[in-house]
Amino acid sequence: MTNTDWDSRYALLRRELEEKGIDVDAAENALKLQQVETPSWGYADGGTRFGVFRQPGAPTTVKQKFEDAAQAHKYTGIAQKVAVHIPWDTVDDWSELRSYAQTLGVDVGAVNPNLFQDYDYRFGSLGSERPEVRNRAVEHMRDCVGIMRATGSKAMSLWFADGTNFPGQGDFRRRKRYFEEGLAEVYQDLNDDEAMLVEYKPFEPAFYHTDIADWGMSFALCNKLGDRAKVLVDLGHHLHGANIEHIVAFLLDEGRLGGFHFNNRKYADDDLTTGSINPYELYLIYTELVKAEREGIGNGVAYMIDESHTIKNKIGEMIQSLVALQVSYAKALIVDWTSLKTAQESDDLIVAEEIIKSAFAEDVRPLLWKVRTEQGLPDPFDPVAGFRKSGYAEAKAEERGVGGSSGLGA
Amino acid sequence: MTNTDWDSRYALLRRELEEKGIDVDAAENALKLQQVETPSWGYADGGTRFGVFRQPGAPTTVKQKFEDAAQAHKYTGIAQKVAVHIPWDTVDDWSELRSYAQTLGVDVGAVNPNLFQDYDYRFGSLGSERPEVRNRAVEHMRDCVGIMRATGSKAMSLWFADGTNFPGQGDFRRRKRYFEEGLAEVYQDLNDDEAMLVEYKPFEPAFYHTDIADWGMSFALCNKLGDRAKVLVDLGHHLHGANIEHIVAFLLDEGRLGGFHFNNRKYADDDLTTGSINPYELYLIYTELVKAEREGIGNGVAYMIDESHTIKNKIGEMIQSLVALQVSYAKALIVDWTSLKTAQESDDLIVAEEIIKSAFAEDVRPLLWKVRTEQGLPDPFDPVAGFRKSGYAEAKAEERGVGGSSGLGA
Amino acid sequence: MTNTDWDSRYALLRRELEEKGIDVDAAENALKLQQVETPSWGYADGGTRFGVFRQPGAPTTVKQKFEDAAQAHKYTGIAQKVAVHIPWDTVDDWSELRSYAQTLGVDVGAVNPNLFQDYDYRFGSLGSERPEVRNRAVEHMRDCVGIMRATGSKAMSLWFADGTNFPGQGDFRRRKRYFEEGLAEVYQDLNDDEAMLVEYKPFEPAFYHTDIADWGMSFALCNKLGDRAKVLVDLGHHLHGANIEHIVAFLLDEGRLGGFHFNNRKYADDDLTTGSINPYELYLIYTELVKAEREGIGNGVAYMIDESHTIKNKIGEMIQSLVALQVSYAKALIVDWTSLKTAQESDDLIVAEEIIKSAFAEDVRPLLWKVRTEQGLPDPFDPVAGFRKSGYAEAKAEERGVGGSSGLGA
Amino acid sequence: MTNTDWDSRYALLRRELEEKGIDVDAAENALKLQQVETPSWGYADGGTRFGVFRQPGAPTTVKQKFEDAAQAHKYTGIAQKVAVHIPWDTVDDWSELRSYAQTLGVDVGAVNPNLFQDYDYRFGSLGSERPEVRNRAVEHMRDCVGIMRATGSKAMSLWFADGTNFPGQGDFRRRKRYFEEGLAEVYQDLNDDEAMLVEYKPFEPAFYHTDIADWGMSFALCNKLGDRAKVLVDLGHHLHGANIEHIVAFLLDEGRLGGFHFNNRKYADDDLTTGSINPYELYLIYTELVKAEREGIGNGVAYMIDESHTIKNKIGEMIQSLVALQVSYAKALIVDWTSLKTAQESDDLIVAEEIIKSAFAEDVRPLLWKVRTEQGLPDPFDPVAGFRKSGYAEAKAEERGVGGSSGLGA
Repeated sequence: MTNTDWDSRYALLRRELEEKGIDVDAAENALKLQQVETPSWGYADGGTRFGVFRQPGAPTTVKQKFEDAAQAHKYTGIAQKVAVHIPWDTVDDWSELRSYAQTLGVDVGAVNPNLFQDYDYRFGSLGSERPEVRNRAVEHMRDCVGIMRATGSKAMSLWFADGTNFPGQGDFRRRKRYFEEGLAEVYQDLNDDEAMLVEYKPFEPAFYHTDIADWGMSFALCNKLGDRAKVLVDLGHHLHGANIEHIVAFLLDEGRLGGFHFNNRKYADDDLTTGSINPYELYLIYTELVKAEREGIGNGVAYMIDESHTIKNKIGEMIQSLVALQVSYAKALIVDWTSLKTAQESDDLIVAEEIIKSAFAEDVRPLLWKVRTEQGLPDPFDPVAGFRKSGYAEAKAEERGVGGSSGLGA
Repeated sequence: MTNTDWDSRYALLRRELEEKGIDVDAAENALKLQQVETPSWGYADGGTRFGVFRQPGAPTTVKQKFEDAAQAHKYTGIAQKVAVHIPWDTVDDWSELRSYAQTLGVDVGAVNPNLFQDYDYRFGSLGSERPEVRNRAVEHMRDCVGIMRATGSKAMSLWFADGTNFPGQGDFRRRKRYFEEGLAEVYQDLNDDEAMLVEYKPFEPAFYHTDIADWGMSFALCNKLGDRAKVLVDLGHHLHGANIEHIVAFLLDEGRLGGFHFNNRKYADDDLTTGSINPYELYLIYTELVKAEREGIGNGVAYMIDESHTIKNKIGEMIQSLVALQVSYAKALIVDWTSLKTAQESDDLIVAEEIIKSAFAEDVRPLLWKVRTEQGLPDPFDPVAGFRKSGYAEAKAEERGVGGSSGLGA
Repeated sequence: MTNTDWDSRYALLRRELEEKGIDVDAAENALKLQQVETPSWGYADGGTRFGVFRQPGAPTTVKQKFEDAAQAHKYTGIAQKVAVHIPWDTVDDWSELRSYAQTLGVDVGAVNPNLFQDYDYRFGSLGSERPEVRNRAVEHMRDCVGIMRATGSKAMSLWFADGTNFPGQGDFRRRKRYFEEGLAEVYQDLNDDEAMLVEYKPFEPAFYHTDIADWGMSFALCNKLGDRAKVLVDLGHHLHGANIEHIVAFLLDEGRLGGFHFNNRKYADDDLTTGSINPYELYLIYTELVKAEREGIGNGVAYMIDESHTIKNKIGEMIQSLVALQVSYAKALIVDWTSLKTAQESDDLIVAEEIIKSAFAEDVRPLLWKVRTEQGLPDPFDPVAGFRKSGYAEAKAEERGVGGSSGLGA
Repeated sequence: MTNTDWDSRYALLRRELEEKGIDVDAAENALKLQQVETPSWGYADGGTRFGVFRQPGAPTTVKQKFEDAAQAHKYTGIAQKVAVHIPWDTVDDWSELRSYAQTLGVDVGAVNPNLFQDYDYRFGSLGSERPEVRNRAVEHMRDCVGIMRATGSKAMSLWFADGTNFPGQGDFRRRKRYFEEGLAEVYQDLNDDEAMLVEYKPFEPAFYHTDIADWGMSFALCNKLGDRAKVLVDLGHHLHGANIEHIVAFLLDEGRLGGFHFNNRKYADDDLTTGSINPYELYLIYTELVKAEREGIGNGVAYMIDESHTIKNKIGEMIQSLVALQVSYAKALIVDWTSLKTAQESDDLIVAEEIIKSAFAEDVRPLLWKVRTEQGLPDPFDPVAGFRKSGYAEAKAEERGVGGSSGLGA
């Protein structure tokens, strides 16, 4: 396609949308403001329990992970923040790291304490029967509050692997109370502008029960903590059939939607590229977010990717994910919300559904091309192709060789 | 087996349990106090969307349903209350019905408003966009409060079929607020000793979203209503993999476990005989209930069966379910709780699990035989066989013939 | 959008595709030849086990169902055949029905014996322990062969509800052998140009085991019967997580893909509008079909819709489904198959995936507009809107009133 | 319990069973002949993708694994064979290993080629697009045939991790044909008394499609290979809701049931202790096996455990699994098969189900106590407790320390 063709496509799309009463300028502005954090560990080697296939060029130092993350931002314009995992990303001098990151055009995002890796945590962290283990977990989270202050990060993102593998192994209610106590200790350290994001997950690595197994458990815990504690929704952390967009809407309405860990799955917590398996579901989630935005609720939601790329090139796949998020947001922005409400109020099912389907059916690439062009991005047509053509991956493979694993996706 | 054999079995079991420090008298007393409501509609013809196979002798009047329910109570001694569905069980004179029930040895249990059957409710009841439909639903529930007063029932059991079939059909948050408003209107009518039990269900008959889809949504709604609103757990209303005993424990700890609709399932909301597919899960749920009882929490939980027997004899199957509940409770009562706590606190996984497994492995039929004998039940060895030998089913088939369907299980 | 705009859109799309080396003329020709049967019972009132909401205007006679089916064909051009269900659609004079259908522009499609509705079948049809019931089922299927001859239908479409609800109820292997015997008796009646399509389903209405539970069981039975016996894939008849496009490819490779029952589901066999829940999955299924077509395999696959529209207008929803099938086929036809093969052979995962994703991302409505315009269809832009504007539904509601249910979707 | 009590319990159980017409001697003889292989890798450290918690005393050499396996056999009497994984268990001198094993009372069982671990296999082994990778896989399997000859093993147990992670990544049918070719090459090396067992698995480590995803795919491949190729059923390799006992019965009837990988799961392929999550399902599987045995079909089924014990003591857990298999087999052996057939043939659902349930309800520990006593096992009452009291685990922890991981469960 030539530039002229993209111009023509854009013009036709814009005219069609404006005929429907869509404010295209507003949509474009919203797309320019979209921001999604990428995870430092998503650039490093990861794998399954059957092994890790180490990729040439995979980063092994914190700075290398930030360099790779900067590439994802460079081609998409929406990935300015990089979530860090402690201790995987621990450095002696956080301000030096931050300065380095800023020279790359990126910055430190959410701080993720690691509460599953050490032998001490094999029977739980906050949910352990041993007070010294629970204390250790609390201290680690408190250290992470310190790292938030040192890096300007405003969010602690908490995932607990805690659970049991067999009926009888643990006492559900006793463990629940340990969680309530431990989280309260950490929560009190947080300032008013700092958020505690509490993730849930039905299983893995625990295979009988997980202490925070679903959004309801996370929600109940957050309710007890206070306003700054919110629920983190990872798209791969649901049982089959869960209607995630409904959960998102419910949490928005309760003022408890803290943020997202985007990825996609077909089976379990597969941690695949965002939008790769069920793009319609991703779009439907975004319709809830846009509708909430329009009604002035849901401010402060943290958008993050959490994926584990076992065999794809990691930067390339991260860009695929970011583009999928741009596409989904763009489609949700051009829904004819006014007509939808009318159709819903009159129980006109087919018209209501057709409105939702038709925004999804649109090819929004011309809109994104326009936005990226105005933002001066390197390849506004196709960020994935742009990155691949740049030679960055090949250069780093040469430069870094085959390194060590410094993280696994959750 | 001769009576002597049962005596010997009982003596051996009792000795084994006492050696472990189990208080067998306390267990037997608890079993004598067990009570589980059966549903009037569970005795009537039911079916699937592919058709209803009408059974000879199926009850068609409210009194006939109570007569059948009295049979289930007669052989098990634990099913004294019969849940009613309004308007399926509506009668002109409730006190006359109650008197009749009492002559049969049973009584009226929870009142279940029907909010899904009428054409008006095809797009929702409390969640409908139409104020007149929402009002109608509220009025119906208020009428049911009146029926509670007329029958001495202390619980309203609420299941809402409300939901949507297609993305775009409804506005999740707007519908949620309609629910909050409608439930609050009804809640204010309830006295201090009356409970509102709010059921959840992931799907069916709505196939895209259900307004109260999981325990978390029911819990959030109850929290807003007040102490008398509690969550009702139907064993068939979960997505695959849900750890129901964990949810039960969580709700117990929050003081929000309202009660159960017992049944079993392998796939969806199959409404099969309680204990027929996964008896270990049922036992594990009972371990949570017994543990809570021992700690003095969870009072007032309503135990109810909700099944739809499409091709089995309905009274026989109900007795199978009641026996499964006796067996599960008995096994949970003979867990060595003291040793279990010690094993859990020292992370001794195998011992902890073996304690839970060994109580399940026991054949508790001698214990139940003893209890039923002391209660003077007709066939203390085998209530199912006792009922079958009585000739009741054959007599009713002759007397009643093949009747009409007056209800479907939910 | 004006006609000019559609012309411009079409021209831009065509140029983009041709630059990639796609043969757009061939794609358009393929779209003109697409044919999908709709089911007579899909136009009639249907429901769930909780009730049937009767719609004004729903057809109650066979001819009325054909009239409605003719509407679906009129607006899409691809639904010329109408599957019939026996005895729901039984008429005295099949040639008179056929003549009537042909005046409407449609014709009789696959013949579907009903083997689940009668009381005799409550414990199974071909799988029953009673020889007289099995014989009755065989005779009914043989009668249906007669109807095939009378109507020119070339396919018998078999779905068996047979199964059991409880462990112990039936003997799996004995029932399997009854199936082998019964199917063989019917199979021998079929001519060389007549197909027996054997459907599978994991559960419902049987809730413990279903005799033909998955594609492997259907496949094993067909293997024993002969070449004319093939597997029928209903999109709603899989457990959660099944990769349906993989099963389709496997059956194509084995020469055993008989056809489809299209619909969509989020939970169980929800029988929702095709493409309404997971349009990407539908597209991926079509990529397998197109790839097979290109390699000359998979001839004779029967494309059919099988849905149960409980609360939408039925003709409108059928048109939505047909359009979704046109869109999916169109997208699969414009995949860059040559580049895909190259990427696959060099394990270039991101490029391979981007090729598949980019065809899906295209808005193919201009292509379908072109095809429908050339076919002279009433509303080439939007068949759903075209039908809705026609006033047909309103006229029939007036004319027919609220009628009876003559069928339920499977 | 004293020995006298066990004697009394045994006598009462025996009398009850004999009254029902059960041949208790035959059941005891069958229990004495029961054999189940345990996997060498199940004794070594294993974990999840989130990490491996190394246990003190875990074996690191092949001989150490056999020593631990011999303990499992010592206490249960049924685990005489040890499956090996190549190259994890490769030794220079197989006959020397075998002699050593025999001095421990055990022997080499099925040979398991590893086709997933090497970097070359990251995009597949037999399903790879690269001929050199496919050849390498074939050569490795041929080497394993050599190991079978060297060790007297009669079964090659094949699990392929092959699959893809994203739509478009691979060509399903091309990969299928690679599998057909590669398996045929290996199959021709096998002698008449050697079996090829082909395992299936729906997902993990591949998350979009797995080349041999379900029993139907394995079955179709085996059909093409010949009589010695059979399907291997791993209890954790099914989608939610699959009726495994039905699949087992179907394969038995087709003569294609090759064997089992026993374990248990609640969510995905959790690889938990056999019988720990759903003991009723395990029993129902055994009812199919016993019923087939009684009819003289299903000879040669290979019984194997495949578990990954991440945090339990591994020998202890293996003994728990073996005991669960003894219990399940014992319960299936005491089903009143004659009465069951009568009940099934007369569609007497409740009686049929009660027969199946009552055998499960029996406490068969007295029967196993009798059998183990006659076999002279160390602790006939409780093999798990017997092993724990022996001090073996503590001695090995001291002796071996904390070692390396030499395997992961599949």
